[in-house]
Amino acid sequence: MSTSFHQGTMVTIICEAVLQDRLIKLLQTLDVSGYTIIPAQGAGSHGKRMGDLAGYNTNIEVKTIVPPEISDQLLEELKPFQGTHALIAFRQNVEGLFD
Amino acid sequence: MSTSFHQGTMVTIICEAVLQDRLIKLLQTLDVSGYTIIPAQGAGSHGKRMGDLAGYNTNIEVKTIVPPEISDQLLEELKPFQGTHALIAFRQNVEGLFD
Amino acid sequence: MSTSFHQGTMVTIICEAVLQDRLIKLLQTLDVSGYTIIPAQGAGSHGKRMGDLAGYNTNIEVKTIVPPEISDQLLEELKPFQGTHALIAFRQNVEGLFD
Repeated sequence: MSTSFHQGTMVTIICEAVLQDRLIKLLQTLDVSGYTIIPAQGAGSHGKRMGDLAGYNTNIEVKTIVPPEISDQLLEELKPFQGTHALIAFRQNVEGLFD
Repeated sequence: MSTSFHQGTMVTIICEAVLQDRLIKLLQTLDVSGYTIIPAQGAGSHGKRMGDLAGYNTNIEVKTIVPPEISDQLLEELKPFQGTHALIAFRQNVEGLFD
Repeated sequence: MSTSFHQGTMVTIICEAVLQDRLIKLLQTLDVSGYTIIPAQGAGSHGKRMGDLAGYNTNIEVKTIVPPEISDQLLEELKPFQGTHALIAFRQNVEGLFD
């Protein structure tokens, strides 16, 4: 793909909405100031529900584009949440218009 | 990218909301227990409307992370829906924290 | 990945909801007839807010799958919006069921 655009790593976190404030604080500690939050519903693996299928918006999807090394750090910092909450997180390379 | 995270294939399905129950059943037949659903609106190609632009939430975006071979199977199983409903589906490789 | 599916470039635009009509017109001038819009909230970089964190849906996420050369053109056309509005845009390769 073209090199006239920025390269970055998009990290997507899908989790219980109750984690929203803690995730924002985590992003701030990593000096990540840009993110997008979308309400979601879902069902998790292992029979663990990731949301109430009778109602929307009990989960959230949080996306942020960061440098690769920050994505490593962010994913590592998210691991402990998986012990207590329904949460998945993944990353992909993207290019485009962003800082 | 790092190998200390899981590798998977994320399949995203964007379609008319009326298909939601049928998609969940299809995911279940493929033994896929984790997925996320987000309400959406949109316009489809071929002049076929994929949602009512005057109102939100008549489409849905369904995302799931599966092994590559299941993504093949899922995309194949989705083909027949395209004959009768507005539906697109696509996949991407992801890595991160998921089962 | 398999070659029995279509290949394309997904462009995702995340911006202030006030830009929605202008983006749809831009997509039309590029002959892009299929797109999906999802309401979002978010915070932007540089301390510029990309949405009102007290309320959902002041941002939008617009996604479309296009040929690679159209994604170049679309990203170029989006650059001027960044001077006046909160907007990021990025692209990724996808394969699947779409035109």
